[in-house]
Amino acid sequence: MKQQTMKALVYHGNGTLELMERPVPKLKEDTDAIVRVTLSTICTSDLHILRGAVPRAKPETILGHEFVGEIVETGSAVKGLRPGMRVAANCITFCGECYFCRKGFINNCEQGGWELGCRIDGCQAEYVRVPYADMGLTPIPDGVTDEKALFVGDILSSGYFGAQLCKIVPGDTVAVIGAGPVGLCTMQCARLFGAAKVLAFDVDASRLKLALDLGLADDGCNPNLCHVEEFVYGHTLGRGADGVIEAAGTPQSFEMAWKIARPNAVVALVAMYEQPQVLPLPEMYGKNLIFKTGGVDAIHCDTLLRLIDAGRLNTDFLITHRAPLNDILQGYHVFENRLDGCIKWVVTPYEF
Amino acid sequence: MKQQTMKALVYHGNGTLELMERPVPKLKEDTDAIVRVTLSTICTSDLHILRGAVPRAKPETILGHEFVGEIVETGSAVKGLRPGMRVAANCITFCGECYFCRKGFINNCEQGGWELGCRIDGCQAEYVRVPYADMGLTPIPDGVTDEKALFVGDILSSGYFGAQLCKIVPGDTVAVIGAGPVGLCTMQCARLFGAAKVLAFDVDASRLKLALDLGLADDGCNPNLCHVEEFVYGHTLGRGADGVIEAAGTPQSFEMAWKIARPNAVVALVAMYEQPQVLPLPEMYGKNLIFKTGGVDAIHCDTLLRLIDAGRLNTDFLITHRAPLNDILQGYHVFENRLDGCIKWVVTPYEF
Amino acid sequence: MKQQTMKALVYHGNGTLELMERPVPKLKEDTDAIVRVTLSTICTSDLHILRGAVPRAKPETILGHEFVGEIVETGSAVKGLRPGMRVAANCITFCGECYFCRKGFINNCEQGGWELGCRIDGCQAEYVRVPYADMGLTPIPDGVTDEKALFVGDILSSGYFGAQLCKIVPGDTVAVIGAGPVGLCTMQCARLFGAAKVLAFDVDASRLKLALDLGLADDGCNPNLCHVEEFVYGHTLGRGADGVIEAAGTPQSFEMAWKIARPNAVVALVAMYEQPQVLPLPEMYGKNLIFKTGGVDAIHCDTLLRLIDAGRLNTDFLITHRAPLNDILQGYHVFENRLDGCIKWVVTPYEF
Amino acid sequence: MKQQTMKALVYHGNGTLELMERPVPKLKEDTDAIVRVTLSTICTSDLHILRGAVPRAKPETILGHEFVGEIVETGSAVKGLRPGMRVAANCITFCGECYFCRKGFINNCEQGGWELGCRIDGCQAEYVRVPYADMGLTPIPDGVTDEKALFVGDILSSGYFGAQLCKIVPGDTVAVIGAGPVGLCTMQCARLFGAAKVLAFDVDASRLKLALDLGLADDGCNPNLCHVEEFVYGHTLGRGADGVIEAAGTPQSFEMAWKIARPNAVVALVAMYEQPQVLPLPEMYGKNLIFKTGGVDAIHCDTLLRLIDAGRLNTDFLITHRAPLNDILQGYHVFENRLDGCIKWVVTPYEF
Repeated sequence: MKQQTMKALVYHGNGTLELMERPVPKLKEDTDAIVRVTLSTICTSDLHILRGAVPRAKPETILGHEFVGEIVETGSAVKGLRPGMRVAANCITFCGECYFCRKGFINNCEQGGWELGCRIDGCQAEYVRVPYADMGLTPIPDGVTDEKALFVGDILSSGYFGAQLCKIVPGDTVAVIGAGPVGLCTMQCARLFGAAKVLAFDVDASRLKLALDLGLADDGCNPNLCHVEEFVYGHTLGRGADGVIEAAGTPQSFEMAWKIARPNAVVALVAMYEQPQVLPLPEMYGKNLIFKTGGVDAIHCDTLLRLIDAGRLNTDFLITHRAPLNDILQGYHVFENRLDGCIKWVVTPYEF
Repeated sequence: MKQQTMKALVYHGNGTLELMERPVPKLKEDTDAIVRVTLSTICTSDLHILRGAVPRAKPETILGHEFVGEIVETGSAVKGLRPGMRVAANCITFCGECYFCRKGFINNCEQGGWELGCRIDGCQAEYVRVPYADMGLTPIPDGVTDEKALFVGDILSSGYFGAQLCKIVPGDTVAVIGAGPVGLCTMQCARLFGAAKVLAFDVDASRLKLALDLGLADDGCNPNLCHVEEFVYGHTLGRGADGVIEAAGTPQSFEMAWKIARPNAVVALVAMYEQPQVLPLPEMYGKNLIFKTGGVDAIHCDTLLRLIDAGRLNTDFLITHRAPLNDILQGYHVFENRLDGCIKWVVTPYEF
Repeated sequence: MKQQTMKALVYHGNGTLELMERPVPKLKEDTDAIVRVTLSTICTSDLHILRGAVPRAKPETILGHEFVGEIVETGSAVKGLRPGMRVAANCITFCGECYFCRKGFINNCEQGGWELGCRIDGCQAEYVRVPYADMGLTPIPDGVTDEKALFVGDILSSGYFGAQLCKIVPGDTVAVIGAGPVGLCTMQCARLFGAAKVLAFDVDASRLKLALDLGLADDGCNPNLCHVEEFVYGHTLGRGADGVIEAAGTPQSFEMAWKIARPNAVVALVAMYEQPQVLPLPEMYGKNLIFKTGGVDAIHCDTLLRLIDAGRLNTDFLITHRAPLNDILQGYHVFENRLDGCIKWVVTPYEF
Repeated sequence: MKQQTMKALVYHGNGTLELMERPVPKLKEDTDAIVRVTLSTICTSDLHILRGAVPRAKPETILGHEFVGEIVETGSAVKGLRPGMRVAANCITFCGECYFCRKGFINNCEQGGWELGCRIDGCQAEYVRVPYADMGLTPIPDGVTDEKALFVGDILSSGYFGAQLCKIVPGDTVAVIGAGPVGLCTMQCARLFGAAKVLAFDVDASRLKLALDLGLADDGCNPNLCHVEEFVYGHTLGRGADGVIEAAGTPQSFEMAWKIARPNAVVALVAMYEQPQVLPLPEMYGKNLIFKTGGVDAIHCDTLLRLIDAGRLNTDFLITHRAPLNDILQGYHVFENRLDGCIKWVVTPYEF
């Protein structure tokens, strides 16, 4: 690797971005790997950084945390990876050894958390250094293409996490609020756990239609245009949804979440809220709801790749746009404003 | 049973109570039983009714829902009870057959819920009619006295419920906020599930002292006088409590609950809140907490009686006052104002 | 219902059967229902009775326990059923109220167990009396045909039970030994719980082929013609199957079951064994296997019907033969000897 | 550490032992630690080796795998240990990183298993080398003495494992077969998980008496002198034990285990059997038992030390004999033959 510099999208703070030249990263710790990014994406969390909603994000950091790539170099303590391997990246950096990692709570790793593209340089670049590479990178099976593996470490993990938090069992009716990238992944995972019916909700008619057209949801409605409680009751003998996954993140969607849940259901709050929410305990008294809050503990990348390989999960439909790194600023504009039906904008290899 | 009328404490609405003469209750349904009340108590929920915080409570109802008694008469469909049996009552009325009852969610029974002393006549009287008697009454083992069995169907069930919601496993450090009757029961149940350390919190110094003196808690502090987060961190290697049970019901105790929890802990909200609470999701993002809200699903009365019989649970210390039904209005005054160290005021058999 | 007698297949003991005239059954208990049988089947358990392997089976009993029908009459205590309703029957009779029923262990109901077609008259007749009808009969949704609902209460429940015993989670590789009626249902249920790969084993080439052709299994082999451990290791990175469901019932299949399991897997023994088996504990020491033995606790009929209605389960392929009750003796011959590719022989309404 | 040789008990194969001089061990891998043994014990597994029942045991190995000690030296990759620390040892060697370790199934570690005193030199010596020291050694809290910590990594872990396998919940009646060292630990752990009643069984009257005298069991009997099923039924309303832990390892105890279990109970087989056992599936058909087999996955040493520190577990009573390493051959004789009421023989520091 004789290349000395590379193109990279740098966050300067205060909502400003620049596509600029940066040094190619080098190994720092013996558990690191250097990865050549073959595909990366723009994620809603990147927008949260730009809006100033992620206080811990550091200026002058290269953005991006959802990607697949090829191993270029590994530190001396890396055991399971070798140069040339295709790998899917985990959006969470974790040591695998601390108290929380041992319990699977990697989002609370004492050495990690959301680091890439937030506190250390991320993947919207030609190369990226990945700490604790044995933990954060999963080899992609031969039968799985890069595009199919792309979402494994972030939004597909989030969808799986949401379905898992809800403790879905076969036959359940599951409501998913928000038919954006995470919501759509959630619907697919709810099905994977055996949901008999998936109900989708979104105020964006085209996204809702997409969920229904793709068969990810069995029915759905626009909360602005229907009475959501009655809609859900109509599907559940008047009881409410067995599980609710809130992937929209607004006060309206939060309130709707607990209202459409049946007594004793889990309401999984997987959205990243920008505001505190009101929990009207007297009003919901006796409903015995369970609220699970959380950033994804993305510990199932290996399982998700196996399920993709087996044809049981498929996220192809998420990719609506593809363009090289040079066009990434346009990508942010299109993705943020959902122009042209954009679900996910994929950054393809940079042309030299 | 030739007696035609009896003394009973009637709620007239608008916070007014009267000890008056009422007809002795009769069987209405073939699943009913008539019980002679041998011991009953005053519960914080009774105070909630008086304060108007329980909209569904019906005026002209006899109050009270925590009691033990003796079966006097049973409906034709009652199978497991016979006149003369000593029984512990469940504060929740439930049919045992509906969708929710089948799942153990009896608080959401389609035919029941909190009925006694709220929507139908309760136990602060000489006799009480108990619907679905096979479900709501549990025979007391010979080795267990009436006093020992008295709290089984309400506050001890609530303590057990709280400990269970927290999914306590041996070795855990469990924080219990509120050292009132439910809080004290909770501490004992946390121990039963194997907690290595129980930490108690109360702004009432005498109750906190009681928890420590009785050995129900290993350590504790007054949230007004200590830095609770640091106190808990000091006991948990800086991680926070493995489980938190909130049995106080104020904005301060709600906020404290999630702050002292370690990441991925369960926060069980067993208090009855009179106000909505604020859930500051951005502030707690990534902590991945689980909030369980709820009114007690008191389905373990049988188990609790077995544990009392085996000497593994003991609630004797809760009874600080005993007086006959004639003195119950004084009881409400003493209990509400925690006079004279009152934890529980027990109504003993009425003297004729 | 003026009809006084009906055709029925009666077990005379000692392996002898007779299709004869019998009185139409009448209500005995107020929880009974009389059902007109619209479809019934012959089950392997019927053969076990004929072979003398079910000591509790009573001579002079009408055989059969897998059926759907129409409610003709209900006892006074039956709540959820009315004449004219189409219902799927549970092969297990259970009261719903005893200690075991409350825990979902209906096979051990203190008042029930396998009664129909074993200790009381069964469904290989025009009419059948069903005890505890509210428990044992589930209304069939409008969108589900009788044929689609036919296996819900016995072999599909058994398949679901097997998958559930194995605690299958998404991504698992599940081995199913035996591709007969129960085995095929098990494969479909393993998929429902999210198995990434289902591996089928049968010494009958045509049944194995069926499992693969129908896509119920991803791969499979004939244990007489392959090295099963190596076959499974090849699919599981050398670890063994994450779950094994044994639905064949021979010494060979029992031994194979624990050998192909990965350490710490569950081996669910859903077959009915006619002989004791050897558990070579020293040989398997440290493998930490879990063996679950059992007759089906068929408590999910409602869920299964919902999943069929939602298109997530489909057992149409099981029905290879249909003929009226008059031909049932031929049915036993064909079914027992697996003639003409017989998987399930369905008894259609009797023509008068 | 200038000492070059040390006393050590060496297994020569063919059931022969010799206390001899051996080189003091040195670090081999950078994850190793050298520990000065402060206390060690003789375990029943050592006797299994002598009897030839552990084929993988290597001749010329120093025996012993249950000990506490002081860290003398650590490899460069060891993170959590420093010379001078007091540590409790895990009887299982495990890497903490492989597929099985990540799931907590350390007994099946791809790099480990039962190594110490079996395939590599163990602790019946002055010093011992411990591989994967960060995994296999747990620092002992200041409040816990060496003697109190001694059994944490083997027999107390086994007791905890047995109780955990049984999924004991508060109120259960738990039967423990065998009142030897593991059985006694199991009884204490069953209590820790909330068992209302612990029933003990042993053919050795003095051990049975010990269990009862110490209050570890509530009742018990000698299977040779009582009808065990009736004994258990008498304690469980005729249902059988909610959980059974078999810690004796004979055909009689195996048969007894499943006979005294209530339907749907877990039978945990924690004993090491020297012979295959017969599983009479037709006889137990419909009882729906769960058999869990296994060597201890000792991953809770940290929790156990915390519980000891909190006064919730106490194994002092196990130590009946203490003597220096020079007397260890006598120790084997006394321990194997249970002379002089021997439960555990503890090897104290060697006198120089």
